[in-house]
Amino acid sequence: MSARTTSYSVQPPRRPSLPERRISRRLSALSSAERGHNGAPTGNTADELTEEIEKIKRYEDFTTIDWVQDAAREQLRRRARRKENAGFFERDGHLGWRRKLRDSYDAGQAWIVVTLVGAAIGLNAAFLNIVTEWLSDVKLGYCTTAFYLNKDFCCWGEDTCDGWHRWTPLWPVNYILYFIFSIIFALTSASLVKAYAPYAAGSGISEIKCIIAGFVMKGFLGFWTLLIKSICLPLAIASGLSVGKEGPSVHYAVCTGNVISRFFDKYKRNAAKTREILSACAAAGVAVAFGSPIGGVLFSLEEMSSYFPLKTMWRSYFCALVATAVLAAMNPFRTGQLVMFEVRYDRSWHFFEIIFFIFIGIFGGLYGAFVMKWNLRAMAFRKRYLSKYAILEATLLAGGTAVLCYPNMFLRIDMTEAMEKLFLECEGGHDYDGLCEARNRWSMVLSLLFATIMRTFLVVISYGCKVPAGIFVPSMAVGAYFGRMVGILVQALHESFPHAKFFAACEPDVPCITPGTYAFLGAAAALSGIMHITVSVVVIMFELTGALTYILPTMIVVGVTKAVGERFGKGGIADRMIWFNGFPFLDNKEEHTFGVPVSQVMTSDVMSLPSSGLDLRSLEASLSQNRYQGFPIIENSTTKALIGYIGRTELQYAINRAKKEGFISPRAKCFFSQPDSTAVQTPSTAAPPVTFDAIESATGQQSVDFSRFIDPTPLAVHPRLPLETVMELFKKMGPRVILVDYRGRLAGLVTVKDCLKFQFKVEAHETTRDDSALDERQERLWSIMNRVADWVADKVNGLSGGRIKLGGSGRSPGILEAHTTDPRDHLSPIRASHHAILDGTEDEDNGVELQNR
Amino acid sequence: MSARTTSYSVQPPRRPSLPERRISRRLSALSSAERGHNGAPTGNTADELTEEIEKIKRYEDFTTIDWVQDAAREQLRRRARRKENAGFFERDGHLGWRRKLRDSYDAGQAWIVVTLVGAAIGLNAAFLNIVTEWLSDVKLGYCTTAFYLNKDFCCWGEDTCDGWHRWTPLWPVNYILYFIFSIIFALTSASLVKAYAPYAAGSGISEIKCIIAGFVMKGFLGFWTLLIKSICLPLAIASGLSVGKEGPSVHYAVCTGNVISRFFDKYKRNAAKTREILSACAAAGVAVAFGSPIGGVLFSLEEMSSYFPLKTMWRSYFCALVATAVLAAMNPFRTGQLVMFEVRYDRSWHFFEIIFFIFIGIFGGLYGAFVMKWNLRAMAFRKRYLSKYAILEATLLAGGTAVLCYPNMFLRIDMTEAMEKLFLECEGGHDYDGLCEARNRWSMVLSLLFATIMRTFLVVISYGCKVPAGIFVPSMAVGAYFGRMVGILVQALHESFPHAKFFAACEPDVPCITPGTYAFLGAAAALSGIMHITVSVVVIMFELTGALTYILPTMIVVGVTKAVGERFGKGGIADRMIWFNGFPFLDNKEEHTFGVPVSQVMTSDVMSLPSSGLDLRSLEASLSQNRYQGFPIIENSTTKALIGYIGRTELQYAINRAKKEGFISPRAKCFFSQPDSTAVQTPSTAAPPVTFDAIESATGQQSVDFSRFIDPTPLAVHPRLPLETVMELFKKMGPRVILVDYRGRLAGLVTVKDCLKFQFKVEAHETTRDDSALDERQERLWSIMNRVADWVADKVNGLSGGRIKLGGSGRSPGILEAHTTDPRDHLSPIRASHHAILDGTEDEDNGVELQNR
Repeated sequence: MSARTTSYSVQPPRRPSLPERRISRRLSALSSAERGHNGAPTGNTADELTEEIEKIKRYEDFTTIDWVQDAAREQLRRRARRKENAGFFERDGHLGWRRKLRDSYDAGQAWIVVTLVGAAIGLNAAFLNIVTEWLSDVKLGYCTTAFYLNKDFCCWGEDTCDGWHRWTPLWPVNYILYFIFSIIFALTSASLVKAYAPYAAGSGISEIKCIIAGFVMKGFLGFWTLLIKSICLPLAIASGLSVGKEGPSVHYAVCTGNVISRFFDKYKRNAAKTREILSACAAAGVAVAFGSPIGGVLFSLEEMSSYFPLKTMWRSYFCALVATAVLAAMNPFRTGQLVMFEVRYDRSWHFFEIIFFIFIGIFGGLYGAFVMKWNLRAMAFRKRYLSKYAILEATLLAGGTAVLCYPNMFLRIDMTEAMEKLFLECEGGHDYDGLCEARNRWSMVLSLLFATIMRTFLVVISYGCKVPAGIFVPSMAVGAYFGRMVGILVQALHESFPHAKFFAACEPDVPCITPGTYAFLGAAAALSGIMHITVSVVVIMFELTGALTYILPTMIVVGVTKAVGERFGKGGIADRMIWFNGFPFLDNKEEHTFGVPVSQVMTSDVMSLPSSGLDLRSLEASLSQNRYQGFPIIENSTTKALIGYIGRTELQYAINRAKKEGFISPRAKCFFSQPDSTAVQTPSTAAPPVTFDAIESATGQQSVDFSRFIDPTPLAVHPRLPLETVMELFKKMGPRVILVDYRGRLAGLVTVKDCLKFQFKVEAHETTRDDSALDERQERLWSIMNRVADWVADKVNGLSGGRIKLGGSGRSPGILEAHTTDPRDHLSPIRASHHAILDGTEDEDNGVELQNR
Repeated sequence: MSARTTSYSVQPPRRPSLPERRISRRLSALSSAERGHNGAPTGNTADELTEEIEKIKRYEDFTTIDWVQDAAREQLRRRARRKENAGFFERDGHLGWRRKLRDSYDAGQAWIVVTLVGAAIGLNAAFLNIVTEWLSDVKLGYCTTAFYLNKDFCCWGEDTCDGWHRWTPLWPVNYILYFIFSIIFALTSASLVKAYAPYAAGSGISEIKCIIAGFVMKGFLGFWTLLIKSICLPLAIASGLSVGKEGPSVHYAVCTGNVISRFFDKYKRNAAKTREILSACAAAGVAVAFGSPIGGVLFSLEEMSSYFPLKTMWRSYFCALVATAVLAAMNPFRTGQLVMFEVRYDRSWHFFEIIFFIFIGIFGGLYGAFVMKWNLRAMAFRKRYLSKYAILEATLLAGGTAVLCYPNMFLRIDMTEAMEKLFLECEGGHDYDGLCEARNRWSMVLSLLFATIMRTFLVVISYGCKVPAGIFVPSMAVGAYFGRMVGILVQALHESFPHAKFFAACEPDVPCITPGTYAFLGAAAALSGIMHITVSVVVIMFELTGALTYILPTMIVVGVTKAVGERFGKGGIADRMIWFNGFPFLDNKEEHTFGVPVSQVMTSDVMSLPSSGLDLRSLEASLSQNRYQGFPIIENSTTKALIGYIGRTELQYAINRAKKEGFISPRAKCFFSQPDSTAVQTPSTAAPPVTFDAIESATGQQSVDFSRFIDPTPLAVHPRLPLETVMELFKKMGPRVILVDYRGRLAGLVTVKDCLKFQFKVEAHETTRDDSALDERQERLWSIMNRVADWVADKVNGLSGGRIKLGGSGRSPGILEAHTTDPRDHLSPIRASHHAILDGTEDEDNGVELQNR
């Protein structure tokens, strides 16, 4: 008991000599290690308590993790272990081998986990690659030698491929089969997602960003999500939807990390450590998706992680390395290399081309802004009207995509394949359907323009539908279409005016412009435009292609894209999705100048608990009446002197535990601090035995001591501290709550959500817009869609003689009903999400709307 | 006056309606903006005050910057500007064009600065490249057509080079000329450094790391340093010393940034903004040195910057891009590309080679650990005995290097050139003096082994000598020698057992092992081993060579190196140098578990000032008696209620200003807070007019109000908060001081230095080592060196018949005298530096020992 109070002193201590200080430090270390133990009979109990509480905490949904407490707990644990070690092994002055072994296992655990996780991610990626390729090929034909081989493997080593057959010799039948396969794949994928793991839909990047920042979403990284995402991702991609595998790849990688790390002690309890692993997994996910290990690490750094110390970088590096090495060893493409589309440009670039590069960069920025704007609207529409028809929507999208894309030679083939062809130089026998021939030039330009527009439209409506779906590759494909188009035009320009001064740098009689490089730069621009990342894009593009001589042009293009993109608002699509969904995430990118002190934002009518005198009944009543996540402890309501903070979970656990241990009168007085703990000046007085056991025997359970459950040193700030500094504290230190005290008296309490509420309010004031026109248009669109659906259903019904009923007219009222039941629907969904945060009090974490998955 | 106290309230405020809140927020923003103005008659005065103080602050030497206050000031400035704008331009409800223009200039200033700085760095780099090449060539011969052309330019476009002549046809004369040139270059370089800019010596990376973290070193980034470093770097490199240009390149880049940004308003005042620019410059420095823009950004992120938000990354990206583009446009090598040594490996690697890659990785780790250990000892020796002989040392080193390196074919040529040759494949006509021929194999292996050992030795003794000197390229060269040696051995092994199962992956009758790739990997390993960086090394290696297929081997090698290196202690050579020099730098890499509360570490007998009642005379007395950097303000010595904090500079300024404004009695009472400021509950009472003017007229200067100079919201923590959390606060938030308060009463004060002192103590306890043997050995070495010097001097004296006197015997006593005058010399210099920190009190910033430059 007394140990707790000796650990600091307000009096100026005399300066002891060195050996003295050493002893006193050891004592203090000891006493600090015991801090958690007050009243607990054995040393281990504190650990057990902490562990039990943490296990409960881990599964609380939609809450945020308190990094400061988490770190403090880890320190406590380490100290306890060290002390224990000292007790067991250091008796005869040297370290025992058992301690060394345990220490190295403990230190090595992280590496074991990272290696296992990396290997699992690599294996999964190889499996997914093989399955995806098989599914894509099976739409076109089959292998006669063995049905489970894809076209490449079926024809392995043969010059003319005898084993591979198209389904029929007739192309219309093939086309219909292609269409049917697309629909079946999309249907299966969407159904599985809906039935087993709604969280597996979408890309998952924005959610993972929040999770890594400390937001808990139960099941989002669970085993089922992993399984379903791994199964449905190949189906979704093979269905031909305009979706990529990179976002989902990050999601299944992070799931893998979460699932595997749970088997290890160190990670079961510690959220901060788990966060390191999750960051590393995100890196590995991108690494295997693109075959770009360094790009993955940088992506994790630039996009995923709000906090990325060097240690995490090193973990990410290692995890990405293992995952990529395993993937390379599996060698799913049998090409023996990671580079997805290797290109070697023989010619370097010319300075005059920078003008066109800048143009491509501008396109990237505009593309990103356009897609983000309209995709958010599509999401709002989807959330409002289509949430019940997720499967139908995905199926129709796949069908529509197949029908629309077939006529265009660039849309027909897979997006990755298309990029591979567009990146190539014309020289050296690389040609695809006359792409390089001068006489086809104008038809190619038109075809590419159509492909750009159509793919952009498809990306806008497809991203966010309820199958695993990323936006990286589709965006890159759009950029590549556009870039190649620009490249062909520049080439045409040069060939028309070969002697113009502008083209003076070109050598005569040699091709000067390489349209393939424009496609490459276009892909970089579009990727950067949609994600608002820079360095990672440059590195990913190199690792994808190896076109190192083009590093300066790539950097210029990405730089221009970024500059243009920022004109239209900060943050990439992942950040917009976070904002759209209203997750409690303090953005690192935004810089605000509110000019208010924290007192303006804090909750000042805090529900606080007096440190003594409260009886158990009223404590439980206040616990059940509100859903605050924690309570400050004050001396009493008169002095309001701040003593500490107790989390809801800890308090609930403490009450339950106390009850379990013996009968407690409902009138029992609760103590949150030792009666003598204010007597700091006399730290050495032996404290009275107020342990559970002692109380039980002495007073017959008329008082309960909760003091060991409180956090005696919560972060507290001055009420006049600028809000910006408080937000920095939240961002950098990561506490769940910051108390506000004025000269030792509790003045209020502030959470991330309070800050966000304030921020939203300020933003709403700054950009007051009328959404009703937009709502009306969406309403009209929905009624048109209903009418079309009814008409189709009636037709099908009529043609089939009533044998096939698609629901038809019977459906629409149901939908409209569903739509009007939610009172929030008269607000646009974006507003609604924000209102969920704005109106919610601290307890209403559940009020945060997630997509209806 | 009252505005200050209304800006927060402890009472639970009623919840006002939205428009009401908007108004109240505006009012509050207004009042907050006015916070600095109390008593100041005009609105601009506060700004002026802040600016004046900041100008003084900027030039305080050997202090640390308070990032929290810096940010707060910036907020204040922005708010003030916004308010002003609102007043001037928003009157008729819309934003004026002047405001827009000013805003965009303000926003664009950063980009203007970054562009200018980047361009300047690129130009400087091009200039340095040209000069270095000319100087290196001039050692060998001269251009008859124009003396200022180097060999490449002299022979430009010619097949046989007629214009370029060796100095004489006799090789011994040439060799002697070479030797003499080397010595002259080193002598000039060292003399210039010593005479004009001692800070220009060394690499500067560790100092810049501290500066970016907030440590002020006057002149380290000044114009003279920039100039001298730019002049002496080519000389040092051309002298043939085992030094590289990369570290100094970072230094001159950062100098450029500092010098240029000073011309801009925004950066003159704001240290945090300047830090962004400096980080960006560090990136540009590496970018131009290696021709590796992304590698530069990552280097800045991984090695230089303790705090690297995305905004800084974006700035760094842009700065590196501009610098590299300018360099590319200048095209100093006339090769038209950035890639320093482009290699294209035709063959990919085999999985069995991983064993050898791991071996190379282990070498890298061991190399790093070895060089760091012995270089630190060499530094200690240098600091203790050689500091007076900097010029002589550098000259002798250059001479010795020239003599020692000439016999070896790999040491003779420039390190960059050597790497270029070692990296190449043997196929395709690349051969250098029979390096690829099978019959030379064993002589090559021996030659490379000798080169490895000799270069390592030279690096150990050369890095740290008083010329601009980096360690990147020399380390890479060592790695390349070693790697090529391993490669040749593996090749020999394969050719001896071509049918062994181990080599099954090799195709028959085709070369299987590429020794050049081993050299490449060796260079990566050694670079990573010495700097302890991972991702940057991988990216730099790719940007240097473009060998993208080798990404996995590179990552494996660097990973192994890092793992091996960490066995021998955390941190690369830059971190060790920081530790060696005792700079106040909290390392991000170290993770400590001290298990003590902050109260154990804090200074508890703080010199604090009562908020009222102190007279001016005693205030001035206490200011002159001690050199504390700041003082907490308490209500009075009884309650010790914490009111705020005032920095020494601010206080001194305030006193001077008050004196300047009129006669003040030495007995005048000083007020640090308004008399009514404790009456928080009644915020609306009009405060009495206690402005300067009012005081002057009313009381005849019997009281002085300093309240507007204090920081009313210093960061304050609970005494029982774990030390680790406090260190996190220092690292992440960056305050200069954290106050410790217990229930509103001041309990103590803690600074970074207190934490470091504690950390050093703990480390010293953990690794108690006897340095006396080492000291004795150094002493013996020194006396041998003296004896040799005497002998040489006597010989020269004798031979020249007394005409040349080298100081000779007369010198040694002087040296030994100089050496024994410093009482600290009986400690080893490392210990001494730490004692400077350990013994220093808060004021003794000047006690931190820098190298004697």
